[in-house]
This record gives sequence, structure tokens and C-alpha cells, in this order.
Amino acid sequence: MSDPVQIGTAFVKFYYQTFDTDRSNLASLYQANSMLTFSGAQAMGTTAIMEKLTSLSFRKVQHDVEGLNINIQPTVNDSILVFVSGQLIADDDSEHPMMFSQVFTLCPANGQWFILNDIFNLSFM
Amino acid sequence: MSDPVQIGTAFVKFYYQTFDTDRSNLASLYQANSMLTFSGAQAMGTTAIMEKLTSLSFRKVQHDVEGLNINIQPTVNDSILVFVSGQLIADDDSEHPMMFSQVFTLCPANGQWFILNDIFNLSFM
Repeated sequence: MSDPVQIGTAFVKFYYQTFDTDRSNLASLYQANSMLTFSGAQAMGTTAIMEKLTSLSFRKVQHDVEGLNINIQPTVNDSILVFVSGQLIADDDSEHPMMFSQVFTLCPANGQWFILNDIFNLSFM
Repeated sequence: MSDPVQIGTAFVKFYYQTFDTDRSNLASLYQANSMLTFSGAQAMGTTAIMEKLTSLSFRKVQHDVEGLNINIQPTVNDSILVFVSGQLIADDDSEHPMMFSQVFTLCPANGQWFILNDIFNLSFM
């Protein structure tokens, strides 16, 4: 089996770079049974999740990808648990970075990895 | 199937109350394949995990159980993903509460729930 830490780390980098460039390109990472809890709001399935992610109040987001704290563990049935915390800047307001934390469960399917679970929270400083 | 939110919420309450009363009683929640990442330090299996949890630098811990932010999703194979954030007070230093966040994957086994994944991080304020 491939190394969960390597897969999880590559996923995190790809996820936030895509999020910050064009969130609509995240769609391929979700499937019909994927779940998102975004600051308490819930969505299930690619369509509902993408509607949520592309209609956030901030139009522009920059995650500090280099400064992320990333913890990874293998989990049930060759899936991977990824726990990320770090800072993001919304709408160029660099004087007020926000702390966020996010958890993913990544599952293998058809030779790819998709996001089964996605829980995102902001912690205001 | 039982309600993941109900199970996860009851687990969280039990876990932190037990942690704050007598950490050694957490042993029954872990199994041989359980994984702990505690502020970056890793341990696997009940014995190694309990050694870590009972030798922390703080002797007394109070989690603010009532004020916790808890997010729960069902995950792979009837397991449950639990994401908790909140405050704790270490060694009665109530003037300096610390923010923590913690992720668990709970798995069913023999009619009980055990912790497969446990990732804990402190965020200093």
C-alpha cells in the first residue's frame, strides 16, 4: 500500500492550491456520498458541496500552505485521516488572518482518492 | 444503525470526563491497532497510548466540556468521525486557558465503540 503520509501531504497541497485558485475545480475530489460540514452547515454529494464552497462570503481565499500543521493517520479500510490547522487570509485582508482547522477522510476508489468526510471550522483570533 | 451524532456526543462527554477524573480509565477505549498523535508525538496500541496519556506534563486537566464545539459525520464502514475543539485548563492555571482541537475515528467492535484514530493538538493563545 502507498504511504498515507505521502498521499495525505500531497492531497493537502493540491486541495488548498486548487481552493485558492479556482474552487470549482475541487468538484472532482468529491463523490455522491461525500459529506461537508462547513462552519456547522452541512452538505452531502458533489453538487451540494460545490454549491456551498463556491458561494462562501469570501470571494478570494489564500491558505498559508507552507505554514500548515498537518497530522495524518491511516484509518478504516485503507482510508486516510488528515487533520490540518493553519492560517488563511480572506479577501486580501492580510492584517486579519484567520485560524482554521479542517479534517478529511480520504478514500480510495477506482485508482483515485476522493474526500468522504470534510469538516471545516474557523477559529477567530 | 444507531445515530452517529448521538453516539459521538455521548462519547465526547464520557471521554473528557474520564480524562479529567482518572486518565488511566481511558484504556478500555483503545485497542491494539489504535493510533494516537498527541501534539505530534505518535503512539500505537493501548499500552503505548496509555503510557503517553498518563505521563503528560500537566498532572491535572479540566476540559470545558459544556463549551465544546463538536462536529460529527458517519464515515467508512459504520465508523464515526468526531471533530472537537474547545478550551482546557491545565494544573489549575485558570488565567491561561488553552485552546485544543482533537479528532477521533470511532469504530464498532463486539457491540462496543473503540477509538481507532486520535489526533490531539494544542493551539496556544
